[in-house]
Amino acid sequence: MTTTTRPEATIEAHPDLPLVTITREFDAPPALVYRAWTEVDLVRQWMGPRSVEMDIEVWDCRTGGSWRYAARRDGEEIARFYGSFHEVRPGERLVQTFTWEGQPDGVALETMTFEPLDGGRCRTVAVSVVDSMEAQAGMMASGMEVGINEGYEKLDELLERGLDS
Amino acid sequence: MTTTTRPEATIEAHPDLPLVTITREFDAPPALVYRAWTEVDLVRQWMGPRSVEMDIEVWDCRTGGSWRYAARRDGEEIARFYGSFHEVRPGERLVQTFTWEGQPDGVALETMTFEPLDGGRCRTVAVSVVDSMEAQAGMMASGMEVGINEGYEKLDELLERGLDS
Repeated sequence: MTTTTRPEATIEAHPDLPLVTITREFDAPPALVYRAWTEVDLVRQWMGPRSVEMDIEVWDCRTGGSWRYAARRDGEEIARFYGSFHEVRPGERLVQTFTWEGQPDGVALETMTFEPLDGGRCRTVAVSVVDSMEAQAGMMASGMEVGINEGYEKLDELLERGLDS
Repeated sequence: MTTTTRPEATIEAHPDLPLVTITREFDAPPALVYRAWTEVDLVRQWMGPRSVEMDIEVWDCRTGGSWRYAARRDGEEIARFYGSFHEVRPGERLVQTFTWEGQPDGVALETMTFEPLDGGRCRTVAVSVVDSMEAQAGMMASGMEVGINEGYEKLDELLERGLDS
């Protein structure tokens, strides 16, 4: 196995609209990356920062389903999150809502697409829409990039060792 | 019973952000208007234009639940809609997603609040967020005001005759 250094995710705040776009490439085709994103036993293995355990309490990944998890560090709960799966379009697209319970009136609508690239690779594009430029700025200042980049590195590792290993 | 002429709903497109805000007042307190908005046997009695029958197939109105309905005119299906209930906060707030199946990639995130007014009245404020100014313009041009205003008139009538009548 060769270890390649992958670029960090690109996290872009739209200059005029309350959108944040997170883009990343993976060395696996859309069908596999999609599986890792939607099957709870795989999601558990990569989502979130390395220092945090994601305790997934609800994961009903279907159109009209919902999800809920707690984040724990050293056994102590540090945050809770929940949302709904608006649309689950296998291998292509996932639309969900997202709330951090620490800010119960804040809601993001996230659309994730899985785009095929040459060489059996894939690009994920996650667009989050919020309702104000202030909410967008809050999202950019939340420190989310740590969880995103460390999580995506763990996802690289999971894809390298194989989803069914 | 006196019949008062109520103003139409105010439908505002934000000039800079992809938001549409729909505001209306009702001659009933938030708790009753909220019930009419969330209990399926009441929703059936008022939602949508007068010329259309809303065939509600799924209505699981709880945080993490979902909904789905077809619109029929003269017995013929003319449109289908679906979404999720992201948050149901009784008497206060309802956050849901909304897709018209004719445009399957279009999703709105709707936050409805029920604000108490003097005299046992209430104001509903529904803010829809979409992901582009083009989607906002499409929403404004969709003809939705007919269904909104006729539906709200039917809701006035339902509130006047009593929810449990």
